[in-house]
Amino acid sequence: MEFSSKLLEKAVNEMAQLPGIGKRTALRLVLHLLKQPEEQTQYLSNALLNMRKDIKFCKKCHNISDTDVCDICANSTRNPKIICVVEDVRDVMAIENTNQFKGLYHVLGGKISPIEGIGPSQLTIASLVEKVKSGDIEEVIFALSSTIEGDTTNFYIYKQIKEVDVKTSTIARGIAVGDELEYADEVTLGRSIVHRVPFENALKNN
Amino acid sequence: MEFSSKLLEKAVNEMAQLPGIGKRTALRLVLHLLKQPEEQTQYLSNALLNMRKDIKFCKKCHNISDTDVCDICANSTRNPKIICVVEDVRDVMAIENTNQFKGLYHVLGGKISPIEGIGPSQLTIASLVEKVKSGDIEEVIFALSSTIEGDTTNFYIYKQIKEVDVKTSTIARGIAVGDELEYADEVTLGRSIVHRVPFENALKNN
Repeated sequence: MEFSSKLLEKAVNEMAQLPGIGKRTALRLVLHLLKQPEEQTQYLSNALLNMRKDIKFCKKCHNISDTDVCDICANSTRNPKIICVVEDVRDVMAIENTNQFKGLYHVLGGKISPIEGIGPSQLTIASLVEKVKSGDIEEVIFALSSTIEGDTTNFYIYKQIKEVDVKTSTIARGIAVGDELEYADEVTLGRSIVHRVPFENALKNN
Repeated sequence: MEFSSKLLEKAVNEMAQLPGIGKRTALRLVLHLLKQPEEQTQYLSNALLNMRKDIKFCKKCHNISDTDVCDICANSTRNPKIICVVEDVRDVMAIENTNQFKGLYHVLGGKISPIEGIGPSQLTIASLVEKVKSGDIEEVIFALSSTIEGDTTNFYIYKQIKEVDVKTSTIARGIAVGDELEYADEVTLGRSIVHRVPFENALKNN
């Protein structure tokens, strides 16, 4: 791309650093900002700068937070003996949205992925293992996505806590509510049969 | 969406103001910035702020430029008597990329669109008409997209300059090079037959 302005080129190039944003999309976004009042660009830039500079991670669960301990960990009505292990803040938001979980979280910050160069030490695994070994935890729920990386991470953590007297579980895999059986993949359908649920239990959760 | 941090929420909301960026995408982009070194967010924010604050529009053609007169208008080897009318800087970049045009541009800054509330006064039509009426122009090439808005804008400008002794043309519509005839829409195929080109001319342009 040949730009008529270095300022434009720089803005487009920086925008195109974001994942999934190509040069053309970046140009479209930047031209949009040029058509809007200058304040919009200021608001956007300041919001990003302030976030990057001041954001904190909860000392207990490592979730993104504005305070040293996040609202969930600080909530005394929640059960601190049940820990749900998730990859990032989006998973916390998704599970909170269901209103079905009243324990606490542990945010790993990613999954073990040799391809992307992410090893256990870059994640918050050590602090999770320490937490479990302290003995106050009754159950650890693994809620990572069921990919090779997710399974590897689950197993890596499991190996380190299995001698501790703690219940471990993973979230149920199965056919999504409302989905047609015929379109489900075999692995998911198979698991949903193996891990079938007593009908009375299923009724209760509706 | 329930956010665990106001700083995060604000950054996501500002990012989601950009066209085509929903809340989920905005969250993904913002979390990416959090994982990168702080400098990346600074570079992005500064590039956007500097661009919005300091960018200029060429006094002659209204294209985005870092100088009062853009490189194209200042280039004395180009023919200032031929003006190609385009919607925005992306069209200038696309046409420049072809290396087939050696005249100058006039960037309208949009198309007349009653639905989006864009009238002729918000575009640089007056300065184009003035330029043409000054008498130094030999040909005006309309290169707007062939939508209702593009055609309306072309016609609005044409009405104002038709009494001037100036040649007007529009870019050729036809089957894209490499495309199969059978998949072309009727209007385009029809136009490509009506405005057929002598075979010798077509050979020359290859």
